Order: sequence, then structure tokens, then C-alpha cells
Amino acid sequence: MRILICNDDGIHAPGIAALHGAVKQFGELHVIAPDAERSAAGHAITLADPIKSMPIEKNGEFFGYGIGGTPADCIKLAVCAVMKDTPPDLVLSGINLGSNTGISVIYSGTVSAATEAVILGIPGVAFSLCTYTNPEWEMAGRIVKELTQKLIENPMPPNVLLNINMPNLPYEQLKGIKVTRMGRSRFIEKFHKRLDPQGRTYYWLDGALEVQDDGADVDIHAVRDGYVSITPIHLDLTSYGHLKTFQSLEKTF
Amino acid sequence: MRILICNDDGIHAPGIAALHGAVKQFGELHVIAPDAERSAAGHAITLADPIKSMPIEKNGEFFGYGIGGTPADCIKLAVCAVMKDTPPDLVLSGINLGSNTGISVIYSGTVSAATEAVILGIPGVAFSLCTYTNPEWEMAGRIVKELTQKLIENPMPPNVLLNINMPNLPYEQLKGIKVTRMGRSRFIEKFHKRLDPQGRTYYWLDGALEVQDDGADVDIHAVRDGYVSITPIHLDLTSYGHLKTFQSLEKTF
Repeated sequence: MRILICNDDGIHAPGIAALHGAVKQFGELHVIAPDAERSAAGHAITLADPIKSMPIEKNGEFFGYGIGGTPADCIKLAVCAVMKDTPPDLVLSGINLGSNTGISVIYSGTVSAATEAVILGIPGVAFSLCTYTNPEWEMAGRIVKELTQKLIENPMPPNVLLNINMPNLPYEQLKGIKVTRMGRSRFIEKFHKRLDPQGRTYYWLDGALEVQDDGADVDIHAVRDGYVSITPIHLDLTSYGHLKTFQSLEKTF
Repeated sequence: MRILICNDDGIHAPGIAALHGAVKQFGELHVIAPDAERSAAGHAITLADPIKSMPIEKNGEFFGYGIGGTPADCIKLAVCAVMKDTPPDLVLSGINLGSNTGISVIYSGTVSAATEAVILGIPGVAFSLCTYTNPEWEMAGRIVKELTQKLIENPMPPNVLLNINMPNLPYEQLKGIKVTRMGRSRFIEKFHKRLDPQGRTYYWLDGALEVQDDGADVDIHAVRDGYVSITPIHLDLTSYGHLKTFQSLEKTF
């Protein structure tokens, strides 16, 4: 089994090392990840510029390729160029530092790597650890290993990826694992307005997630309550419920 | 009525001038758009870097703000900072050069501006003209004007944006306007592998859309057949049909 590993925190991040360590027993690992942090890259791809690729070593051994592009670029490049003749059987993305629940899914580079895999016909899974401080890598590695093993035994159907979020708890304190939906939420943005040394305006974005969803079955609340959250995500963005709403705009010339 | 205008081809692109001209009669226009092309930006936002803002003139008059960020950054910045006290009633994005149908919706910066508007609770519409050569701006302007007028008369419900794609035909040759779904498709990627002057590898991405959908009701085919395509797009990426599929992964500790 060939497993392609990516993330959005960059190839030097501790989370990708934790992911690598957790799944190396399952097969041949290929690491192709951004050469630096690309958080909040969404599903951006690089068309107008070249994409650089550099071999990266860890502890004196070849670890993978650091790519001067977005997480979606990395997956495209891996599947359609670097591994073209022997494509991966599974794409794992992460382990991201910080949650990718609710509306964050839309901005997430971690999720976009798994999305791109599924677009290209390969099962994709995104893992995030919901903290920025004192990460419980040991718990996260165990969960990644358990879930990856199950997904290898029971292969995923096409056109769906999994977005997995882990609460930052020791393994023994986890309440369980839940299948959830993406919670309705938005960021409450705060822009810091400043002047640069030449007196020109710039802004710096900051904000906090506002939850707009009371459902017990949503990703945000599952993590808050100590559960690992698994949300199936699809690629079809059509709002089928609204197809009739806008029929009055139709016309024939 | 306050209308916020954005795009992903940049504030100097002809498409944003065409959009501006088409809707200026409907109210007070505010242009806040990327300072350069940001095509395929997806839903990227800028968190790790400052976002520069520069006033831009056209024909000797103030036209809007050129932003050193992504389309989603522009909408956040407009709604949450620049226009904070008098937020826009409607966000229009485009007119993009090139189609945003099928899987392109996921990569599109034009669509992401409208998506971000809807996340922030403001109706959002994305317009694209499906060509890179000899754009029929006159037709596009007429369609934008007609549809915007209807959307002002019949305000859109929350949590949905419209992704509108126009075939590149003179107005008289259009077949009509159709409400469609997002067609299943993928890009067939082609990476050009090259060496830089220092002998290091880089790639350049190229590719063509492969349609995987025969439905007569999809965006791609509507445009091909001479119709303006209107696809309602939602923000909830949960694949509800798969919630049961993955129940076997659930457990309680």
C-alpha cells in the first residue's frame, strides 16, 4: 500500500512527523508537503507561477519533497507527476495544529489536501488536533493509527473525504468517536489597522469562531465534549434545496 | 442600496469595470478588490501576513481600494473594517474571464468572494464569462444588469450564493437562462517539469477540464448549449448521504 502524506503546516511541522510515525507500519510512505506553513490556504492552486520542489532530509535520511506551493498543489503534483506511474492508494493530511471544524473547513489547507485527493479519485482523510498549545501527540498518533487501520480494512467509497478532529486530551480521557456534521458558524473578524513605516495603511486579520449551531451532532460540539469527530465531506457544492427557489430567474429567448 | 464589488482578476481587470458599469445605476458602489490577479485562490485567506490597502484611481477619479490579499480577504476587510458602520446590502464578484463551472467552483477566487459574503450574512453573486478571448462585454453587462435587478426586487434567502456563468455569445444569440447544478468533473493535470538556472527542479501546472457528468441540467452543458447558467451554492459541505456509511467507525470509551 502506498500512502501519500501532506499537510498545511509545512514539511518541517511536528504534526506531519507524528502522522508519519503513526502510519509507517501500513505501507510505503511518500511525503510531499508545502516547504513552509500554508495555513488557511483554502483550495488555492498555483497556476501563474512555477512550483519548486526540494528533497528534504530528517535525521540524516530522505524524508520527502518540500513544495513551494499550496496543499492542493502538493497533491496534484504528487499524483499527476512525481508518483504518476505508481499513484498513492490513500492520502492522509495533517496532523494539523488547531481545529478544522465548522466554517473553518472552507478555509483549511489541511482539508483541501484530502479534497484534492478525492477529486483525483483517491481516498483522502484530514486529521486535526484541536489545540495550539501542549499537543497530545501520543493520543493523536494512536487515534490516527486506529482509524487508518479501519479505513484500510473497509475502503472508503468515492466522492467523499473524512475530516477528523481530535480534542486535545490524553487517550484515556477521550469519551469516544462520533460521526458528525459540519457545524454552522462564522468568524467574528477583527482587523487591526496600522500604518507602515512609509505611512501607508495595512491591516492584520484576527478573529474568533462564533458557533451558530446548537445541534448535538455537530463537529464543534463533539470535540468540546471530548469526542473525536469524523465528518464526511463531499465535493458537490450545489444547494439542491434552492434549485426551485431561483426558477423565476429562468427564461428562454 | 450599497453594493460591494470584488473579483479575482484584480482591480485593474476589464471585467470589474464591466461589472461596475452594468450595476452603477442600482446604488452606491464600493470596489474593494485584489491589487493583482489572484485566480485560483480558492477560499484562501491571509492570516500570517499583513494585508495592504491602496486607493486606486480610474480616469482621474477614485475607483476603489486595491488589496494585497485574496478575494476572501477583500470581502472580510470590506465588511468588517472599511465598511463596518455601513455594511453592503449585496456583494457582486467578477466579471471573471474564464468559466467557473464544474469542479472549478472549488478553486475559484471569484466564487470565493461571493461565498465569503454569504458567510458574513450578505447576499453574494459571482459572474463569469466563459472565454479568454474576444469577450462579449456588452452581452455580459446586459445579463448582469438584468439579473441584478431581479435579485434586488426578489432578495435572496440566507446561506446560499449564486454562481452565474455566461457563454461568450452576442446577446441576441443566447438561448436563455437556466438554473443548474454543479457538474461532476476534474482537471486532467499536466505538469511541465523543468530545471531553473541553478539546476533545481520546478514544475508548472497546466491542464484541461474533463467532464464526468452527462446530465442536461449541469452548469457545464448549459453554457455549452448557449444558456446563461445559474447554480445555487451552499456552505454546508457535510455529505449527509454518508453519515451512516461511516457509523462503524464510532465508538464510546
